[in-house]
This record gives sequence, structure tokens and C-alpha cells, in this order.
Amino acid sequence: MSYFKNINKIQYEGKGTDNPFAFQRYNPKEVVLGKTMEEHLRFAVAYWHTFTYGGADPFGVSTSVRGWDYSDAMDQAKARVEANFEFLEKIDIPFYAFHDRDIAPEGETLQETNKNLDVIADLLESNMKSTGKKLLWNTANMFTNPRFVHGAGTTSNADVYAYAGAQLKKSLEIGKRLGAENYVFWGGREGYETLLNTDMALELDNLARLLHMAVAYSKEIGFDAQFLIEPKPKEPTKHQYDFDAATTIAFLQKYGLKDYFKLNLEANHATLAGHTFEHEIRTAAINGMLGSLDANQGDLLLGWDTDEFPTDLYATTLTMFEVLKAGGIGRGGVNFDAKVRRGSFENEDLFLAHIAGMDSYAWGLKAAAKLIEEKVLDNIVDNRYRSFKEGIGADIVSGKATLHTLEQYALQNNPIINESGRQERIKLLLNEVIFSV
Amino acid sequence: MSYFKNINKIQYEGKGTDNPFAFQRYNPKEVVLGKTMEEHLRFAVAYWHTFTYGGADPFGVSTSVRGWDYSDAMDQAKARVEANFEFLEKIDIPFYAFHDRDIAPEGETLQETNKNLDVIADLLESNMKSTGKKLLWNTANMFTNPRFVHGAGTTSNADVYAYAGAQLKKSLEIGKRLGAENYVFWGGREGYETLLNTDMALELDNLARLLHMAVAYSKEIGFDAQFLIEPKPKEPTKHQYDFDAATTIAFLQKYGLKDYFKLNLEANHATLAGHTFEHEIRTAAINGMLGSLDANQGDLLLGWDTDEFPTDLYATTLTMFEVLKAGGIGRGGVNFDAKVRRGSFENEDLFLAHIAGMDSYAWGLKAAAKLIEEKVLDNIVDNRYRSFKEGIGADIVSGKATLHTLEQYALQNNPIINESGRQERIKLLLNEVIFSV
Amino acid sequence: MSYFKNINKIQYEGKGTDNPFAFQRYNPKEVVLGKTMEEHLRFAVAYWHTFTYGGADPFGVSTSVRGWDYSDAMDQAKARVEANFEFLEKIDIPFYAFHDRDIAPEGETLQETNKNLDVIADLLESNMKSTGKKLLWNTANMFTNPRFVHGAGTTSNADVYAYAGAQLKKSLEIGKRLGAENYVFWGGREGYETLLNTDMALELDNLARLLHMAVAYSKEIGFDAQFLIEPKPKEPTKHQYDFDAATTIAFLQKYGLKDYFKLNLEANHATLAGHTFEHEIRTAAINGMLGSLDANQGDLLLGWDTDEFPTDLYATTLTMFEVLKAGGIGRGGVNFDAKVRRGSFENEDLFLAHIAGMDSYAWGLKAAAKLIEEKVLDNIVDNRYRSFKEGIGADIVSGKATLHTLEQYALQNNPIINESGRQERIKLLLNEVIFSV
Amino acid sequence: MSYFKNINKIQYEGKGTDNPFAFQRYNPKEVVLGKTMEEHLRFAVAYWHTFTYGGADPFGVSTSVRGWDYSDAMDQAKARVEANFEFLEKIDIPFYAFHDRDIAPEGETLQETNKNLDVIADLLESNMKSTGKKLLWNTANMFTNPRFVHGAGTTSNADVYAYAGAQLKKSLEIGKRLGAENYVFWGGREGYETLLNTDMALELDNLARLLHMAVAYSKEIGFDAQFLIEPKPKEPTKHQYDFDAATTIAFLQKYGLKDYFKLNLEANHATLAGHTFEHEIRTAAINGMLGSLDANQGDLLLGWDTDEFPTDLYATTLTMFEVLKAGGIGRGGVNFDAKVRRGSFENEDLFLAHIAGMDSYAWGLKAAAKLIEEKVLDNIVDNRYRSFKEGIGADIVSGKATLHTLEQYALQNNPIINESGRQERIKLLLNEVIFSV
Repeated sequence: MSYFKNINKIQYEGKGTDNPFAFQRYNPKEVVLGKTMEEHLRFAVAYWHTFTYGGADPFGVSTSVRGWDYSDAMDQAKARVEANFEFLEKIDIPFYAFHDRDIAPEGETLQETNKNLDVIADLLESNMKSTGKKLLWNTANMFTNPRFVHGAGTTSNADVYAYAGAQLKKSLEIGKRLGAENYVFWGGREGYETLLNTDMALELDNLARLLHMAVAYSKEIGFDAQFLIEPKPKEPTKHQYDFDAATTIAFLQKYGLKDYFKLNLEANHATLAGHTFEHEIRTAAINGMLGSLDANQGDLLLGWDTDEFPTDLYATTLTMFEVLKAGGIGRGGVNFDAKVRRGSFENEDLFLAHIAGMDSYAWGLKAAAKLIEEKVLDNIVDNRYRSFKEGIGADIVSGKATLHTLEQYALQNNPIINESGRQERIKLLLNEVIFSV
Repeated sequence: MSYFKNINKIQYEGKGTDNPFAFQRYNPKEVVLGKTMEEHLRFAVAYWHTFTYGGADPFGVSTSVRGWDYSDAMDQAKARVEANFEFLEKIDIPFYAFHDRDIAPEGETLQETNKNLDVIADLLESNMKSTGKKLLWNTANMFTNPRFVHGAGTTSNADVYAYAGAQLKKSLEIGKRLGAENYVFWGGREGYETLLNTDMALELDNLARLLHMAVAYSKEIGFDAQFLIEPKPKEPTKHQYDFDAATTIAFLQKYGLKDYFKLNLEANHATLAGHTFEHEIRTAAINGMLGSLDANQGDLLLGWDTDEFPTDLYATTLTMFEVLKAGGIGRGGVNFDAKVRRGSFENEDLFLAHIAGMDSYAWGLKAAAKLIEEKVLDNIVDNRYRSFKEGIGADIVSGKATLHTLEQYALQNNPIINESGRQERIKLLLNEVIFSV
Repeated sequence: MSYFKNINKIQYEGKGTDNPFAFQRYNPKEVVLGKTMEEHLRFAVAYWHTFTYGGADPFGVSTSVRGWDYSDAMDQAKARVEANFEFLEKIDIPFYAFHDRDIAPEGETLQETNKNLDVIADLLESNMKSTGKKLLWNTANMFTNPRFVHGAGTTSNADVYAYAGAQLKKSLEIGKRLGAENYVFWGGREGYETLLNTDMALELDNLARLLHMAVAYSKEIGFDAQFLIEPKPKEPTKHQYDFDAATTIAFLQKYGLKDYFKLNLEANHATLAGHTFEHEIRTAAINGMLGSLDANQGDLLLGWDTDEFPTDLYATTLTMFEVLKAGGIGRGGVNFDAKVRRGSFENEDLFLAHIAGMDSYAWGLKAAAKLIEEKVLDNIVDNRYRSFKEGIGADIVSGKATLHTLEQYALQNNPIINESGRQERIKLLLNEVIFSV
Repeated sequence: MSYFKNINKIQYEGKGTDNPFAFQRYNPKEVVLGKTMEEHLRFAVAYWHTFTYGGADPFGVSTSVRGWDYSDAMDQAKARVEANFEFLEKIDIPFYAFHDRDIAPEGETLQETNKNLDVIADLLESNMKSTGKKLLWNTANMFTNPRFVHGAGTTSNADVYAYAGAQLKKSLEIGKRLGAENYVFWGGREGYETLLNTDMALELDNLARLLHMAVAYSKEIGFDAQFLIEPKPKEPTKHQYDFDAATTIAFLQKYGLKDYFKLNLEANHATLAGHTFEHEIRTAAINGMLGSLDANQGDLLLGWDTDEFPTDLYATTLTMFEVLKAGGIGRGGVNFDAKVRRGSFENEDLFLAHIAGMDSYAWGLKAAAKLIEEKVLDNIVDNRYRSFKEGIGADIVSGKATLHTLEQYALQNNPIINESGRQERIKLLLNEVIFSV
């Protein structure tokens, strides 16, 4: 059975093609800086946005009618698996990612829920084997069900915490079984609604305890996925504990968890926290914490997580520039944590939107590669900080300087000459680079 | 010479007084939870806002005409010292705080600048001796002068870094001489305008080096003030490295500086970073990092640092609640890092604004004390988390639980019952507490 | 059958009562400025938040389990009617408000949908008769159903427009039948997602056409409710046409609709648009456009419509101050367009939250009355603008002044003396007024 | 005397040039859609940012050292005139724009101030004659001087209002004398700090009175410039009366001023108000109110007016698309109300920044022209709304439809079929168009 009968496998046709169902920029086998595009980008489809979500928002119900919308929950779950692999095949994306509750419905009991999961995991496994598609990461959805109303690892109710632990255990097992390359923790309800009734210290301690248990259990079962925490500042809760990259790093350092985790950064989460995406990536990179990317974009005039498909070439270029400078995305990937707009409710839009994102990321990759190859920014930066390469600057960097030697130097060094940062010029340069590839 | 001839020393007259130049709430000797109000609050006047600033904003020049606005810079500096102590005396505030450049003008050379500083420091010292007023903290202004256009400890120019080191050295010496109880680092230009020309890793390393030098030098000269870093997310730079409490803690942890620093938290900086002030205080407190407070308030519909005098009783109550729960403000204090509105340009407004802030903080202190004495929130919190006191919850907290034991528990524990968080009820309770003291 | 068996009718018990299910501030028959509290406030319950919504958010499903959650849609609809009247009775609120789709489910066809509506309207009518409860306003929900994905009155599809017209017609008929005192238009999808595919001029023209049709039809059937437009700047759409009060007034003026409409203003919508609620009310009032209020509050650190129950006494006081200055709320009312937090999922919370809102509004009313009776702000304002009462100021106000006469005056009037606006003092005064009632 | 000795006249060298002091995109005589680029764009230099401002921000003083920074205010003013014309010549921009206080310093009295203005106006006039450069618009700065602390046309002090009238009169005279093609009103202090002490109704009435006087006086003296109001939502005041395009239109309609004014829209003001720039332009255009543009860009992660040079090609393309669709900018122009970053303090940066802006706007113009010529968006829009061209849709648009006929139609029209809005696809198309020019 085919869910996308009218769509053929998307092919690269190059710039200027009139075929909307073709890539103009993403040429998977094209080599950029020594690796193919598909090796650089390691795209993944987000199961929840593409196969579970249907366009609902706080003021309206789903708008899409997908072929896999059966009324029986397990039938629907199985159909989604088929749709997923057909889609991965046709859109030419090697990875997918899911929450446990995306792939299989909950039952009346945890036993039944886990059984549902096993049935679907079987199906996923056989499809992966036959198609060669891989699991970028999986995770546990511990935020949708009412039981998590006050949090999961940071709940005020020990029974819920226990449930979360059990769910996490199963989720790690599923990850191992399906060969997940990463495992993600996004704390959708790990935060608070109001400090007035919240024991923040206990909640954070408990969260750390749960992560330690996850580390221990993954060792026990030999699940060697890269563990990732995904920061988000707010929404659904008023304030989430993993606010941004820096906050998450502080938490991991405090609780002795830094060696076991990296970060899964998301563009829209970055801007909700008041940062650019490139800021978050740079922050992670210089702390050795860059793990994987959730590719999307927000609308900076809106205050919620819009999860749009990424089409802004400034953003994709600077994202890929940071990734390349950091040595690549490693075991992580570029996961489209993006949903078609509510008004883009046709099945075709699923393809068109992924093409928009993939072409925009491929474009960004090539522009970033050009920035690097031609040392457009590197030369500017090297020149700008050159005074730290010799004399007093070298003393500072080597740790030889003290307030005494700095004072001595400064007292005889008058006047000081600064140089322009040339920001406007650099931005025009960037335009020319982005739009010349 | 008097700069505030028409104003008498402000006295406590109690609720309902018609005298606008009296305290209705701040009764310095009144005992609250075992300490006097003035011991709890340790108010400080911010020299810059009260004696240096005159109402300029990006679209207009100063509006105030103060008695101390002499054209000769050193005459003006001396007059400000006199005004400061007269003001402290009349407003009944025990502490003040300053940046080096607030108190004395720069000269042509660093030598001359330091000489100016020494002259004024002499004057401050003698005034402190005669009045008993104390220095809550001092700091170095390394952001106003054009030389710091690209930063101080994070500059791209080693000559500027050296100057910053020299300025910092002098500033620590002044702090020691005047018995400063704290020393503050606010990185007004320690951030970036654009990542495109910025070596963030080098800049952060350099910043840490400067702080290590400051620690070393303060030990050398026996300056035992509490060192404080003041987070702010942005403004003047596009992005500041000490974004918020958590970011600053991550930085201090990474560079081995956590034992030498605490945080100076500011209300308006908290909200610019997307947090409530009480969130920032709680974050600091549970990390053992609560140092001191910059008391003011922002306008959440405006996107810049408005530094208004604090009058919102919700905010002052929750601030003092967090402080009391953390065991008090210690060697820190409540510094009015607040400026009169540009339209409040008369000398009387300096008094009226401080009275507004002091009364609002005293009110908040009493409301917070009532919250604590009557266990209004503590009972709610204790009850809410009671499941972590026994059984599986106690196992979780003690570290005995594993994913195995949690799963075992969860599999037989169905259904889970949660309880309401009662947020609306708690907010009404809070109204009654705040407005009943 | 009772849905709130354990709750008795809420009574006024006065300040300091320990009974959480009592009013401390709202005393319906207490006279304030010549009218009873219930006459001033004209509270309404929002059917959708209280009887339809159950705690779902974009990351989680409903948390509440109400007694009226039957699986058959019409059974559930009937049960909600009963719950509504029991609730109105027990909470002592005289009005309610609804969207057509809140009260009755859609059928397969418009015919069937209208039939469902009629059945429930019968039930509402008989309950209103027996209880004396009244309909503050009704409206048509033209945003939840997928057909409105691109708008209703501003859709790109004429078939949808026609449907909207038909739905509106029925809704006006229901309003007339139930004696609605007002009829509200909230354009939940009347805006755009992107200008790139939008004919804004046509959409606005069409919207105006629909409103003219509504005016004509209401005249035809003798429905004399006050017509209200409810501004909101964004959410669910990226940009809504009725952005705020001023934008809506511009629209109504342009299309000759100003005489037929007033505004239904909402606190959270005001802040999402960058205004305070009091700003929106003042704007409406000075344009003769104040119609009714949707009482709630937002969280200014969050960028979406949180619709919290109003408990901020600054806001309720200034809201009621503006209302009283405008001569009262007239045929409008104070409708609790507010939902219990997702974590407040128990039936008791519905009562506690309304009590919180009602007590806070009653408190605000009394504080506002005191501001007016004691002319706390009026005296300040009168004094501040006194120069426009005589001389050149009077000439300006009377229209006699020209640039010639102003120049002539200015050339001989040097220097100009301004007076402080005393903002800080006024804010402290406000604290004391709110406290003292 | 030359202030920019090292800079030659900037020439078009085409894409790919290595010369940073050349245009790659802006080719003034190149014809696009039937007009030359310079006719389309009508660029203007903003005197204040380029010749008066020097890099000061709320936390730091000026960083630039310009050649025209003489200590005598009139010497400096004269030097700025020379610098202005040399700059216009070398950057190849035909227009400039100024506030009265940018060009000449205030004296002790209004008489003296006006005399200073006349001296400089003489100089400007002779330079305009000799160079052929023109004045796009002038305006009166009624916000910097302390007298305007509480507003100018909305002041609480009639003496200040009179002064504002006198200043405005002189400013109109200067505009007439210099042949200004437009005259702008930006109400930098026309708003309020707090409603608590503000008579908003009186202030708005007074503002309208002042505008009526300006209209009358300009007729009297035969000054036929296009009058423009420039909306801004906030900053410096907490809330400005000309919040955005719609608010300003509402104001002009109410006070019978709509026929005498158009709008001067600014990109950064648009985003501060929660709109895109293209939204504001579309709003103005469909109301016949598009006057002129202040070209710059804001940083959407910052909450204040950053006035950056425009380099975002998405924004310049969509801006020029709206302008072209509206029939061009008419007597208005594209004024660079943009300042070099504080770190771009060298004279060269003035050129590089304007080149960045001009090239980006020229690029946007060409991309917009391509969008129009190839009907990229028009075809999408025409197709999307095609149902309003016939049948029930045509009846709606022609005004024939009523709620009766709509209901009749809807009752037999089931189901309704909508079409996808294709937002993601359109955004990718836009990338390719911007790229390809």
C-alpha cells in the first residue's frame, strides 16, 4: 500500500528546475569539503510532526486528512510505520527520530503500553532492515499524558517519578534494539508553573538522579548511543529547567553528568531563550558539548514555538558554518523538528516542506563551506585578535600576566588605538557569499 | 554647604501619614524575624544614578539641574561626595556603591586618572569616618570609555586588556582602602555585537584569566571583600557573556572560579533574560551563590533596562521571601540600582523615589516574614512533595532507586492519582498576605 | 443531578476568613459609588473555559475529569448546560457567555448542526427562565473547524465565507432568542500566516462586508444587542487584523461601521499587543468605544495567550479606575475569559479560581472608587495640566492659537519652567490606596 | 577642505568586485521596470546619524573621531554641512534629510537659535545649488531638549506647546526655503510615561490642533511638501501615540487630518510594534497612505531601536515588492535612518555601511522586479482567491450577498474543499528569486 502514490522519489535536478518535487540544491552525493552532502547533513524526519501531528493548534483542530488515519489506534500506528518508510525512501532521508508515544498508543496499563511498543518496534526493525534507514534518536514522551501534569523527573509525586523511570527504561531498551545513534532527553514538563508551590532544589536533584539512573542502565544493557539533552526555555511550562545551552551545562557540571551528555540544540528554542541558533551552537562547541541539531525556525515576532521548516539562508549558512568549524555533527544529525503550517495540510506539503528545508540546509552547507575555504571570516577574526599572538597579548594568553605586569604595561602605553569591527561590511560580504553558491 | 536644604532627615511616621517625606513602612529599628529592618535590608544608594546620571536617554539630554553640577570636573566630583553623604544621612541609608569613574573623572593619562581617584578616595574616606556610612561595594567602569568599545576583559585588543587589568588593580586597592564589603564585576561590554567577527572561546578564556588575576591580587593585598559577578543578558552589547545566573555559574564552574565568586543579581536584568527576579535568586541560592541584590524594576512591555525604583509589592515580597529562605543577604545588601524617571528631575524626586523603594522593600520584608512565620507557602510545598518522604519516594531521594526498582513499582501501581497545584488559590492568598501587613 | 455536590453557594464572609470557599472582598450587595458591586462588575462565566476546556495545551491532553464528560456529544452538551447553571448559582455570578460551538456539537451538515444548537438553546432558555441568569454575550466560533483554516470573513475561499455568513445568521438568531445583551466578534482566524500569499485589501473589504450584513440582519430581526469587536494581535494567526483597539477603530471608521460597534477588550490581548490593559480601555473610552471586558491576565514573560484568572491588584484597580472614569461598563460586563491552570484540574479549582478573580476585581473596584472619591489622581492631573486653563493654554484648547500667535508668545517667554511628573511618588501612593481598602 | 580624502566617488563595478568601496548591485542608471534604479530608490542620507551621532549609547560615550568635531558649535555645524555634501557626492546619493537641531545648535534664546538656523540654511542652500543635491525631508527635533521632557504637542505645559509651535513654524519655513519634498513629524516625546498622571484625551486633542496649525501655515506660505507622520510604538517614551500605521491612520481619520498626511514608515519601528515592515507598508498602501521609508533594520532579539543599516535581503526584497505594487515611492524616498555600529567608528565605515545598505536595497529592488515580472506571487494570489471572481464569491464582493443568500448557499454546499496555502514552497521560491538576480 502506498500513502504517497502521486509522488516519485525526489531527485536532484539542479538550480532553476521547474519541478517543485525535485531538489535544486541538495545533491546527496556531491562532495563538499571532503565529504558528501548526505554525510555532512545526516538528515532525519521527525515522526511526530510528519506522521502524528495534523495541524491542531490551541484554537483549532487538525486540518490534514492523511491516509493513515485509521480509527483503531494500533492499526493507525502500523500504518504510520509504513508511511514513514515510504516517505523516507521517497524524500531520500536516511534517518528518522521518534518519541515512544509517537509510534505506539498507550494501553490501559504500563504492561499493555509496553506490549504495544514491542509490536511496533518489531515492525520498525524489519522495515529498517529492508530499507537501510536508521534511527537518529529516540526519546520518551513524558509530557503529553495527564500523569505528567506536574513533571516527570521533576514531579511532585513520587508515583509519577517511578512511572517515568519505568518508561525511560523501556525507551532505552527500544533505542538499543533499534540501534539508535543518539538518545534524547527533552524535559517538556521539567520546569515549573509558579515558584510559589515549587521545591526547585528537590526537583533538580531528582532530575539529576533520573539521568544518573539512565546512564547506569544504558551501561548495564550496553546501549552506547550518544546521550543528548535538549534545552528549551519555556512552553509548555512557564519556566523549564533546561533553559538554554549554558544553563544545561551548568546543571550537568553540578551533578557530575557532563561526561555522559551532549546537547541537542534547536533553532526555535534558541530564539525563545533570547539567543541566535549560532550562539547556542558556538556555546556548545567551545564546551565540547555539540551533539545534534533540531532544524527548524521560529518567527521572532511570535512568542511561541512555531517549529517552521527552515528556509532562512542566513540561519542555515551560519548554522552549518558553526557545525563545520566544530568539526562536523559527528553521531548527531539534522533532524527536521518542524511541522507544516496548519494551512499546508495536503500530503504534498510534507514533501514540499522537507524539500524546502533540505535545499535550504544544503545551500547553507555550501555557503558555509565557501566561507571556510576562502577564509572569509577566519581572516577577519585572525587579524582582529592578532595582538594576542605576541608581546603583552601573548603573556595574557599564556597565563604569565598579572595585574602588576598589566599595570606596568598600561602606564606607559598611551594612547590606545582600536580598529573598527566592520560589522556592516561583513554583513554585505555574507550576502554575496550566500547568494553566490 | 547643603544640597538638599529643604529636606529634613526622613523619619518613620507609620501608615497613613500625609507627609510624603516620611517612611510609612520602613522603620529601621523595628525587629522582623529577630533582626532589625536595617540589618535585613542593608540598603545602599547607587552613586551613579543618584549623583552622576541626570536624565539623559538615547533621544534626549539630561533634564535635572543638581546643585553639584560644576563645570570643573574635579570640583564636581568633590561636590558629589558631599551630596552623597548628605543624602545618605537624610535618607537614612547606611551604604553606598560606586564605579571608579562615577566618583572621579579620567585624566589625560592613567597616572592622572589614578591621581584623581586618590584625591576623591581621601575625601570619601574622611566622610565615611565622620558619618559612619559604609561602602557596600565598588567596581570598575570598563564600558563607558571608547577604549572599551570591543570589550575590556573580552576585548580583541591586548592593549585594552592590559589597561583593564591596570584599572581593575587600582579599583581593588580603592575597595580595600575604603573597606568595601563586596566587589562587583559587571561586564558591560563583555559580550559581542556579532559572532561573525568574534572569537568567543578566546574571549571567555581571557575573561576567566582576568578574574583569576583579580582573585590573586586581592589575596596579595589582603582585600577580603566578597567578589560578585552581576549577570545581564544584553545591552549595551547584543549578547553579554554573563547572560543570567545559570550562565554565570556555568562559566565559574568551568574555569575553577566558583569558590571565589557569588552573584549580584538585579531585578531588571532578570526580566530582560526572561526570568523573574525570584527565579534568579532561587537559582543562586540553591547553588550557594547568592551574594547581593541590585534593587529596581523593569517594565515588561519595554525591551531595555529601565532601572525603575522598585514599587511592585509582589516583586518585593517574593524577593525578600527568597532572601529570607536563603538565610538572609549576608555581606551583600539591597542596592538601589535605580534611577528617577527622566520626568522626575527635581531634587525632591531623589528622596521620594528612594522612599518609594525603601517603603516597598520594607513592606515586602514584612509580608515575606508573615509568609514564613505562618508557613503559608511552606505548608503547601511540604504537603505537595510529601510522597518523597517515604516508600519509593524516599528511595529516590536517598539514591537507592534504579530504573529496575522504579519499573517494578510502576508496573503494579495503577492508576496514579495527582493533586491540583492550586495556583489560583495561592495567588489570592498572597494578595491577602501582602496587603494585610 | 449535581456536578458540584461538595460545594455550597459561595458567600461573602469578609477579610480574614479561613474558608477558601467564601468571598473576602466581593460583597455583591455592597454599595460602592452609588451602585452595588454586582451592578458595577456584571460578572460573567466563560462557558468555553469552564465547561468545554479541560487543560489541553500544545504539548499535552486534558487533565481534568469533569462529571459532564459523557461520550455522546449531545449528552455531554446537555450536561454542560446543567453544570453551567449550577455553577452560576453557586458562584453567584449573574451572566454567562458562549460561542455557538461551545454549547452544541457540529453535525454532519449545517442543518444538523443548527438543529443541535436549537435543542441546546431550548435548554438554556428554560434554565435562564428558572434561574434568572442572563446571557452577557454570545458569538460564533469560526476558527476551530478545519474549514476556517484560511479564515472566515477573510477566507480565500468564497464557499467558506458563505458558510461563515450562514453560521453568523444562526448565531444572531440564538442571541436574540436568549436575550443576549451583547454580541461579540472575535476574529480568531481573521488575519494571515504570510503576506506572500495574501490579498489583504480584499480580505479586509470582505470582513467589512460581513459585518455590514450582520448589522443589517440584526436590524431585520430586531436583535438590539450591543455589537462588540474583540481585538487580538496574533495567535492563532501570525497577524490578526483586529490587532488592538486603535487598529480596530481605524478599520471601523474606514468602512463606515463605527456607529454600530464598540470594543470587547481583553487584558491578555492588550499585553500581547504591547499595551497595558488600562491603555486599551482608555483608548476605547476616549473614542466612545468602550463596550465590555474580558477579564484575565497574561504572563509578560511568556509570548502567548495564557488566559490566567486575574489576581494582580494593580491591574484590577487600574482597570476599574478606567471603567469608572468612563462612566461604567454599561451593557457590557466583566467576563472571566480565563482558564484554570493545567495543574489546577480539580472541580474545586473552578470555584477557587473564580473566587480569586472576583475578589481581586472587587478589591480593584474598591481601590478605584477610593482613588476617585479622594481625587488621588485627579488632583495630580488637574494640577499638571492647569496651564491649559488660561492664557495661551486656553487659546490652544479653544482653537484660537496659530503658529503665529504661538511663536509670538514663545519668543518673549524665556526660560520655560517644567515641573516633575512625580511618577515614583504616585506609585507609592497607589500601593497605599490598594492596601487600605 | 576634504573630510574623506582617501575615498573616491563610489562607482558601480558589478558582482564579484574585490573593491569594498564600490557598488556590486547598485547601478544608478540601470533601468528596472521602466525607471532607473536611482529614480526607484531615491536614497537619502540621514544627517543626524551620519554627521551628528558618534556612537554614544546608554552605557558609553561617542567612539568616533570625525574631522568635523570642532569645539565651537557653529564651526562644527558649518563643517558638518561641508562633510554632508562631500559625502553625498562621493556616495552618489541625491537626497539628504535632517532635524533642525542636527544642522545648527540652539542658542540662549529662540531668537538666537533661529539665527543659527538661518546661517546654516544659507550654507545648505548654496551647497544644494552648486551640487544639485536635494532635501528629501526636514523635521523639527522636539524631543532632545529638556523642555520637551513631558512632550511637545502633547506636553502638560502650555508654554512648551507654544515653543513647539514656534519651532515648527520656523522648521516649515526652512523646509520651504530649501525645497523639501516632504516634511516629517516624528513624535519622539508624544506619548506618556505612565497613564497615572496623564490626560490622554487632552494630549491627543492638542496634538491634532498642532497638526492643523501646521497644515494651515504651510498653505499660508505656499509650502507644498508632502506631510508625513512617522509611527513608532515606544522609546523614548513608554508608549507613543503614533504606535504604528493603523493607530496613526485612526488618529488622522478622527481629527479630519487624513487628507493632509501620509506615513513615513521605518523598518525598526515596525518590528518594535510587533509587525513586519512589509505589513506596515501594505497597511499604508491599501489606505492610500504610503509616503516614504526610513530604511534600516532592527535586531528582533533586542527590544530597542538599533537602527542598523539594512542588509537583510528578505526584508529589502519584500519592502521593494510592496513599494512597487503600490506604484512606487512617489515623492518619498528611501532614507537611511541607520547608524553605523558603535564598533564601526572609522570614517570608512560610513561609506561601507551606506554601500551595504544601497547594494542590499538595489538587490531587493531587482528581486522584487523579478517577482513582479514573472508574476511569482501574483499568480499564487490570483489563483488562491479565484472563487471571489464568480458565483457566490462575486456576489459577496459586489455587495449583493446577504446573510440570507449566504445561508441558502451554504445549506446546499457540503462538503467544502479548501486548498493548501503552500507557505513552505513559496518561501523556497523566494530564496531562488533573491538568489538569481
